[in-house]
Amino acid sequence: MKGLISMGFLLYTKDSIHFCISYIDICLFNIDIFLQLFELFLRYPPKIFLHFKKNIFYIDGSACRAIINFINQKDHGLFPSHIIGTHFQSHFKGGLFMERVFNFSAGPSMLPLEVLEQAQKEFVCYGSSGMSVMEMSHRSKVFEGILEKAQADLRDLMHIPDNYKILFLQGGGSTQFAMIPLNLMNKNNKADYVVTGQWAKKAAEEAARYGKVNIVASSADTTFDRIPELDESKFDKHADYFYITLNNTIYGTRWTKLPNVGDVPLVGDMSSSILSEEIDITKFGLLFAGAQKNLGPAGVTVVIIREDLLGNAMDFTPTMLKYDIHAKNNSLYNTPPTYGIYFMGRVFEWVKAQGGVAAMQKRNEEKAALLYDFLDSSALFRGTVQKKDRSLMNVPFVLPTEELNAKFIKEAGEKSFVNLKGHRTVGGMRASIYNAMPKEGVEALVAFMKQFEAENK
Amino acid sequence: MKGLISMGFLLYTKDSIHFCISYIDICLFNIDIFLQLFELFLRYPPKIFLHFKKNIFYIDGSACRAIINFINQKDHGLFPSHIIGTHFQSHFKGGLFMERVFNFSAGPSMLPLEVLEQAQKEFVCYGSSGMSVMEMSHRSKVFEGILEKAQADLRDLMHIPDNYKILFLQGGGSTQFAMIPLNLMNKNNKADYVVTGQWAKKAAEEAARYGKVNIVASSADTTFDRIPELDESKFDKHADYFYITLNNTIYGTRWTKLPNVGDVPLVGDMSSSILSEEIDITKFGLLFAGAQKNLGPAGVTVVIIREDLLGNAMDFTPTMLKYDIHAKNNSLYNTPPTYGIYFMGRVFEWVKAQGGVAAMQKRNEEKAALLYDFLDSSALFRGTVQKKDRSLMNVPFVLPTEELNAKFIKEAGEKSFVNLKGHRTVGGMRASIYNAMPKEGVEALVAFMKQFEAENK
Repeated sequence: MKGLISMGFLLYTKDSIHFCISYIDICLFNIDIFLQLFELFLRYPPKIFLHFKKNIFYIDGSACRAIINFINQKDHGLFPSHIIGTHFQSHFKGGLFMERVFNFSAGPSMLPLEVLEQAQKEFVCYGSSGMSVMEMSHRSKVFEGILEKAQADLRDLMHIPDNYKILFLQGGGSTQFAMIPLNLMNKNNKADYVVTGQWAKKAAEEAARYGKVNIVASSADTTFDRIPELDESKFDKHADYFYITLNNTIYGTRWTKLPNVGDVPLVGDMSSSILSEEIDITKFGLLFAGAQKNLGPAGVTVVIIREDLLGNAMDFTPTMLKYDIHAKNNSLYNTPPTYGIYFMGRVFEWVKAQGGVAAMQKRNEEKAALLYDFLDSSALFRGTVQKKDRSLMNVPFVLPTEELNAKFIKEAGEKSFVNLKGHRTVGGMRASIYNAMPKEGVEALVAFMKQFEAENK
Repeated sequence: MKGLISMGFLLYTKDSIHFCISYIDICLFNIDIFLQLFELFLRYPPKIFLHFKKNIFYIDGSACRAIINFINQKDHGLFPSHIIGTHFQSHFKGGLFMERVFNFSAGPSMLPLEVLEQAQKEFVCYGSSGMSVMEMSHRSKVFEGILEKAQADLRDLMHIPDNYKILFLQGGGSTQFAMIPLNLMNKNNKADYVVTGQWAKKAAEEAARYGKVNIVASSADTTFDRIPELDESKFDKHADYFYITLNNTIYGTRWTKLPNVGDVPLVGDMSSSILSEEIDITKFGLLFAGAQKNLGPAGVTVVIIREDLLGNAMDFTPTMLKYDIHAKNNSLYNTPPTYGIYFMGRVFEWVKAQGGVAAMQKRNEEKAALLYDFLDSSALFRGTVQKKDRSLMNVPFVLPTEELNAKFIKEAGEKSFVNLKGHRTVGGMRASIYNAMPKEGVEALVAFMKQFEAENK
């Protein structure tokens, strides 16, 4: 008889909670094996075999061995990794064991394991509502509570002043590329754009359909390996806004110093760096971010807009693409992506529990330094971005030959380091290390890179 | 010590699967109570206390009593209802017990419990991917498989011919209200609309911003209590399309016979009735549906469009609002709402397992008949819609006075019948009984209505 045993163990930190067995999932087995497993639990009560260390839950050696011995005698597997975290993965590498991988995807990307587990727990019944968040009317008190809490937590995390509205919209960054000119090119019908990558270029192209776009600077000539130097004399003082992409996902660059735009509203695409580093929101007229990198599932776009920029959209702007409509209705003009908003709210709570954005930034700087320090010391690997503009979130790197790049990606995949292939316009590799990627994941990747270098000198 | 014990039991129907304890979740307890509960499991192994009946899982009487006795001796609760379904709810009504309610919300609304549970199970790790569906790149093989399977299943369920594209978009019906004129008013810049409710009216108003709208008929004069009679002489033979709302969520009416529009493309909003009844897709040029009623979580919009209608959008149409862009890119022009698409795909599989759309329709007709038959026989309750046009999905009804309406809604809520309040423009009550509402839910509601009538004669 073949099959899979899934077991999850969670230790709560609150004093009143002693332990929690998150779930036990036994299928494809007969009653005999089921009872034997329960007897095993009785011999090793959770108090004994659970320990808590940092954010990672694991089973201690003796109990682990006992369980492994037990399952080794049977034709089935044990699957605890997604509950007890990455620490435990290496113990359970093998055909019968499902496990969480180290996911370096550029987006949609890794989400905090703690949030996934909490959402899983309350997936079918949320609180005392008797229903899933997915089943709630967006006009219900419970959902309005979820929405308002998410807005308040984001306001708190990013220090967003009261004269900015927080909107939760649909359509991703690509819809923002149109909404921004449709809503903001309303005085002189022109805007300044800095082209630092494919997404900035797409934004500028869409805007050019609705007004005059002034490309202030571009780093296209060096495949966007830097944030270009800005010549302020090229800035248009009468531009309706000045557009930048704060972190460039594909190329791994970021703005470390904001341009001096005077009274022109600064508009920023922060899709791949929101909540990863502190930012002075008051320098911006509008900031937006698709959720699917640092915030939650794809399908929600966060827009933070200064109130004086609301209204006066172009005549033909579809109602659903008018910021003021969503602002007036607190993102409830129509049915919003309710579950995405809920999940994002849980991520906001998680970021707060980690110490807020300043603490996330410190951790992200440490994580990125692990990779960059290795790249700078390596004789084989090389980062592709100019040092001054290196992203904390997306780290592109290459090996000397295409053959070695391919070999590295293949062998990394076999070790559960996945989605490391670089964007086709850059080639090589890219490790996206968003907020949810634990330091241990980056350490494990660097260790593997060192090993790969030793084997391929 | 206070707290909650969560237990889920699932019996698989496949021969090779004997049973599955979905999860056991114990918190706020000490080790002693935990061990006692495990001993209880050992005394009542799942084979004994699980029975399978229709789609509903429940615990049989003796085991149920044993568990109730056990928990009654302790200061804590047992929570199996969201796993074992509605049948078990009444046994566990009480302060310490969380339970699934009967959710009659008009949308977002009840989802199939089996799908919620399956999604919960694979929430953190999907298949052998090592990650949540939420964490997957939309360009990954795994996600593309999910997307294509969902499209193929919907094509199969609705008998959609090959010359129609299936798109999974964002922005809900309200965005379709703009996309339809922007993309289809491209020959004579005019369209016919039948106004059968608030949503049809909003659609017509948005279209009128982009071209000439001919209101063929309206039932506004009787608060949309019917589908109006159509005078074909008012149809514009040169209209670019003819627009109808197949099921009117707020007012509880539906089209039972499609208008004879000749060669003019028929456009249908099927948000609140998709997959609830069979429809001849070849009669339509375009059909759309927001997911949040019969399909899945809010944030995905299904658009089914005949290929010859693609292209030639108005000049100023935002790229993201062009159907042809999404058709060319198979809904992957930008990051789609990946998790919503996955969940919807699971709902499609569920509808197939129920026997497809014909079987759903039969069940929906039976469910609706339970309510309408009672309304027609009641001396106290009254349906608000003309019989010939009654919806299978949304059943509005009233009591003789506002006081009785309010009393009914309050008492229903206490019995876990929630979201029964009618739309403010109709008043009274509305029971939305989408695909996911089991017949037992409607039976229970009718039983409660009978009891209410007896007590309030």
